[in-house]
Amino acid sequence: MKDIDIAQQATLKPIQHIADKLGLPDDALHPFGCHKAKVDLTYLKTLEHKSDGKLVLVTGITPTPAGEGKTTTTVGLTDALNRLGHATSACLREPSLGPCFGMKGGAAGGGYAQVVPMEDINLHFTGDFHAISTAHNLLSALIDNHIHWGNELEFDQRRIVWRRVMDMNDRALRQITCALGGPNNGFPRQDGFDITVASEVMAIFCLARDIKDLEHRLGNIVVGYRRDNTPITAKQLNAPGPMSVLLKEALAPNLVQTLEHNPAFVHGGPFANIAHGCNSVIATRTALKLSDYVVTEAGFGADLGAEKFIDIKCRSAGLSPDVAVIVATVRALKMHGGVAKEALDTENIEAVRAGCDNLVRHIDNMKQFGVPVLVAINQFVTDSEAELAVIREISESSGVRAELCSHWSDGGAGTEALALQVLELTQSETSTSCHALYDNSESLWDKVRTLATRLYGAADITADQKIRNHLTMLEETGYGNLPVCIAKTQYSFSTDPTLKGAPSGHTIPIREVHLSAGAGFVVVVCGDIMTMPGLPRDPAANRIRLNDQGNVEGLF
Amino acid sequence: MKDIDIAQQATLKPIQHIADKLGLPDDALHPFGCHKAKVDLTYLKTLEHKSDGKLVLVTGITPTPAGEGKTTTTVGLTDALNRLGHATSACLREPSLGPCFGMKGGAAGGGYAQVVPMEDINLHFTGDFHAISTAHNLLSALIDNHIHWGNELEFDQRRIVWRRVMDMNDRALRQITCALGGPNNGFPRQDGFDITVASEVMAIFCLARDIKDLEHRLGNIVVGYRRDNTPITAKQLNAPGPMSVLLKEALAPNLVQTLEHNPAFVHGGPFANIAHGCNSVIATRTALKLSDYVVTEAGFGADLGAEKFIDIKCRSAGLSPDVAVIVATVRALKMHGGVAKEALDTENIEAVRAGCDNLVRHIDNMKQFGVPVLVAINQFVTDSEAELAVIREISESSGVRAELCSHWSDGGAGTEALALQVLELTQSETSTSCHALYDNSESLWDKVRTLATRLYGAADITADQKIRNHLTMLEETGYGNLPVCIAKTQYSFSTDPTLKGAPSGHTIPIREVHLSAGAGFVVVVCGDIMTMPGLPRDPAANRIRLNDQGNVEGLF
Repeated sequence: MKDIDIAQQATLKPIQHIADKLGLPDDALHPFGCHKAKVDLTYLKTLEHKSDGKLVLVTGITPTPAGEGKTTTTVGLTDALNRLGHATSACLREPSLGPCFGMKGGAAGGGYAQVVPMEDINLHFTGDFHAISTAHNLLSALIDNHIHWGNELEFDQRRIVWRRVMDMNDRALRQITCALGGPNNGFPRQDGFDITVASEVMAIFCLARDIKDLEHRLGNIVVGYRRDNTPITAKQLNAPGPMSVLLKEALAPNLVQTLEHNPAFVHGGPFANIAHGCNSVIATRTALKLSDYVVTEAGFGADLGAEKFIDIKCRSAGLSPDVAVIVATVRALKMHGGVAKEALDTENIEAVRAGCDNLVRHIDNMKQFGVPVLVAINQFVTDSEAELAVIREISESSGVRAELCSHWSDGGAGTEALALQVLELTQSETSTSCHALYDNSESLWDKVRTLATRLYGAADITADQKIRNHLTMLEETGYGNLPVCIAKTQYSFSTDPTLKGAPSGHTIPIREVHLSAGAGFVVVVCGDIMTMPGLPRDPAANRIRLNDQGNVEGLF
Repeated sequence: MKDIDIAQQATLKPIQHIADKLGLPDDALHPFGCHKAKVDLTYLKTLEHKSDGKLVLVTGITPTPAGEGKTTTTVGLTDALNRLGHATSACLREPSLGPCFGMKGGAAGGGYAQVVPMEDINLHFTGDFHAISTAHNLLSALIDNHIHWGNELEFDQRRIVWRRVMDMNDRALRQITCALGGPNNGFPRQDGFDITVASEVMAIFCLARDIKDLEHRLGNIVVGYRRDNTPITAKQLNAPGPMSVLLKEALAPNLVQTLEHNPAFVHGGPFANIAHGCNSVIATRTALKLSDYVVTEAGFGADLGAEKFIDIKCRSAGLSPDVAVIVATVRALKMHGGVAKEALDTENIEAVRAGCDNLVRHIDNMKQFGVPVLVAINQFVTDSEAELAVIREISESSGVRAELCSHWSDGGAGTEALALQVLELTQSETSTSCHALYDNSESLWDKVRTLATRLYGAADITADQKIRNHLTMLEETGYGNLPVCIAKTQYSFSTDPTLKGAPSGHTIPIREVHLSAGAGFVVVVCGDIMTMPGLPRDPAANRIRLNDQGNVEGLF
């Protein structure tokens, strides 16, 4: 059965019922239809005195085309903890609308571990991404408008770094020239569109503590430079005011439910490459105030996702995960062990063993952050007992328990073993020692080098003089104290996406550096990063439609 | 007191309370927060057997910078009819978000004749315009993607007529070149963005009877042509399926309330120049099923707005207005009589008398449609008794009653006199004879000529041979039976915006012709029409912000 069929056949509870589980009063809930709601930001202020629940981070091995299942594990573990009597909420990113019409399909879990209503969540949901696109593009319009009317701030039109955005896979917008057609249309210049999830406004939205912090961060955005390379900020264009007005409603966290009617906060969704790849701080903090346990997910593998979760999100928000769950599958580990996608159905114990190098690297990495670790083996019907045993054995020799999870087919019941381990670890003393991997006072270069050598197994990092000068310039202009946000392929510890397993001794080359002064990090690009996807030859759009009953088909 | 202050100080009723007035069951309502809701489309199907209420069209004299107040009159008349014991709903267009940050301010009425919550309605509201932008831009992406992967349909890349859209005043996007940057980004070509309200998807959305009709119309959109000038449709790109999925939720009409807690359907908002400028057919039909009276508004003056309302919307939807109210102000008539904006505060009876030429032309025009007419004088404190008397006298010599309205300061109580006249006219026999001004079987040229000579007072229409060929080509390819949608300046009966009053004997030149095959009309452009506004030197965005209490300021 397809994910969408399971989701459509589910009987959802009214969202008020989910809110009741959290102890939310009626007037703290802004319903969007019957099964979605936003939690009032004013109400959230009243929770400040409450103590936080435990925070469980779900991360993964290096992703492969076989798929790992971080989102399903997050949902399954949430349901399992609830089954065991612990009030638990999930915190997830909102999916991007654009990729739904390309290859990716939906991003709200799968099988019997989904958040619902899945069509709504995958499409417009509560409009947050539209609000973010609009706020972003208002700033773009204000830049060109300012230049059109006299350019008082003295923008160097060759040095405008604020592109436009659209929540669509549209390769034709990657590079454009705008303002053509004569004096009434402004000064022609090169520009381009990123997909909305790549917007710095999205990253800011997800890191902001409240509306005031949001406005402050928006003001810090550097949109371009003068001829003398001095930066011009959004604040100088009076943009933070109207942008905050556009984002005000969106900033309230969204509440939906899992298929087992447990609370799920689905809010914000920044890219995991040029941004930090986690749901909003506001949603996580809300969930922690309202639940005993919060299970959340970080993008990509642990080297990128969990690292940014801890070094960027947690450091900025004062959060700390109590346990990290690394999701692995037999199939993905086989691919890391050298097996082609076509041969994954055949038992291959040695390939699993070889592929576990990748898992062990991630385990060791997470230990460097001081977080207790568990391995979740997301089970497939093709997995053999012997293959599963190898993963357990290797995990245990790294001092970590590996638990079999079957939430995809069994829902929360299939993840109870993992949930019991989570309970045991979070009730032990070791679970409060999480720390960032580097100090923000280090140089930008040293921060990148620390990540490359300690997490990626690299021997060193390199960069052209131009990049080194850029880093120096950023430090001289007061941005040296920001954490770094590495944008590199998610498919390898190296910058070569074909290098699976646990490569070491390689070099990480820095290709570009971008300042995200509003979000509060310096993006360090190591490799080719796509910020506006395209549609494939036969896009999913070809099959997405309403059937005669008016239900959505083809969104999977 | 500013409009926003009045709106923010109002105590709104829960939207369920408004729904109760309409007899809507709870499960027919999809709430968006506490004060907005969508009415379920499935429920609307169950109303088919019910008889319709009376339909009141609010239109206006030729607009001037003095402002006329069609929206406030629509709201005031709705409240007045309710005060007199008649269950009445208002039907209005949704405001466009983009212009809120430019000069225009909000568009949800004013004073004590507003629909609320005004900030929500003016900003993202229930996300309809975002859904329309997304559906439109998905079609754009599918076009360029199709060409990128081989161009099987043989698009002539010089003849793509489907531009992109954004709900933003952004002049820099009017003309662009896209798909630059090499083979991965597609084939470079000229393109541009219109504001969302100018999208044909918006016009289709507002004319569709239901989701099936919507999908059918979307399929008919002509997006470009081959080298041999044969058209390529959205259907050939498989676009109607995913576009309908994106528009499904938006298509349900939005319910809000007036300041006096009466129902207002605010849904859809196509441009009144390159489209027909009325709220959605679905909203109007819903309101007619649920109310005894429905008061609705058409864009611009009666020559454009009321004409399109009757010739395009009503003809397509099988609707018929029972009475038309022409809104005029002393100040605007003075401007038509030759007075400059600065001198409007001074009494000038002769200028009012001269300006009434404009009013009389509109009265006579509306009579040609067979609709009973009333004049609403939207009162200002600077109006003198003598000036008001002139309007009454001239209206009466045209056989029409003119009633003084003070809804702006007094709410519905200020418009009861007008409401009594509406009741009288709609209960007479004459009120069911409305008809279109031309037959769709006439040639496109004759249709335009009929409007120009019978409504605009023109002697004739002209066009270059190229335009005449285009019209012939449209007739030969089967589009000759469509109604015409005139895009010309709203500030004059002529194509010269400075020619006020009631000019006659002029010539209307056709500059361009566009096919809107999905919406079902041929746009005939007579003059310069802007489909992407810009921001002014000092945009409203400079003053829009959240104050310390978290409320919106500067949106007026």
